[in-house]
Amino acid sequence: MSIELVAGLEPPYCAVVFTSIETGELEGYAETGERMEELVREVPGFLGYESARTPGGLGISVGYFRDEEAISAWQRNMEHQTAQRRGRAEWYERYSIHVAKVERSYGFERG
Amino acid sequence: MSIELVAGLEPPYCAVVFTSIETGELEGYAETGERMEELVREVPGFLGYESARTPGGLGISVGYFRDEEAISAWQRNMEHQTAQRRGRAEWYERYSIHVAKVERSYGFERG
Repeated sequence: MSIELVAGLEPPYCAVVFTSIETGELEGYAETGERMEELVREVPGFLGYESARTPGGLGISVGYFRDEEAISAWQRNMEHQTAQRRGRAEWYERYSIHVAKVERSYGFERG
Repeated sequence: MSIELVAGLEPPYCAVVFTSIETGELEGYAETGERMEELVREVPGFLGYESARTPGGLGISVGYFRDEEAISAWQRNMEHQTAQRRGRAEWYERYSIHVAKVERSYGFERG
């Protein structure tokens, strides 16, 4: 899991917010996550990715994309679709996905 | 920190994605976070809040609001402004804020 913080993007761009609660049946989960990170970085218009998970609690991942076409390209990826099916079958108790257009953004960095 | 998962909102609505890396100087941080959760729930048009933090890594919080007016009301809250200043002075090494309009959302729940 990445600890990079995505900053300095020029709006408008798209954010896909994925929030999830795991089942605890996590065989293959970490490897698949790493593979998905590799794959998404190849999508034209992919801008960045952030992920956090409170142990035993909620996970939130955010993918940033230049536009809807970039999101569609990622959604059409067959290996991604297979991972999503496996996620619903095994890894996730619940999840929500919010697809949004970022209209402004700010950053702070300690001087 | 909440482990509720926000689901079932009707687009369009707004999402404020706050991603951060802490300094490790966290005196007053948890109490302030709890107080902010209390306060934000009083804002008309506040729809929900999710938060996750990887230990020693990235934190991601997402606040959902009906519209820009609800976000503005929260930004104008003086106690929230004081907490933000303290965050920059003490708690956060870096952060990014992305203000976005959610155009569609999906959910999954294990049957």
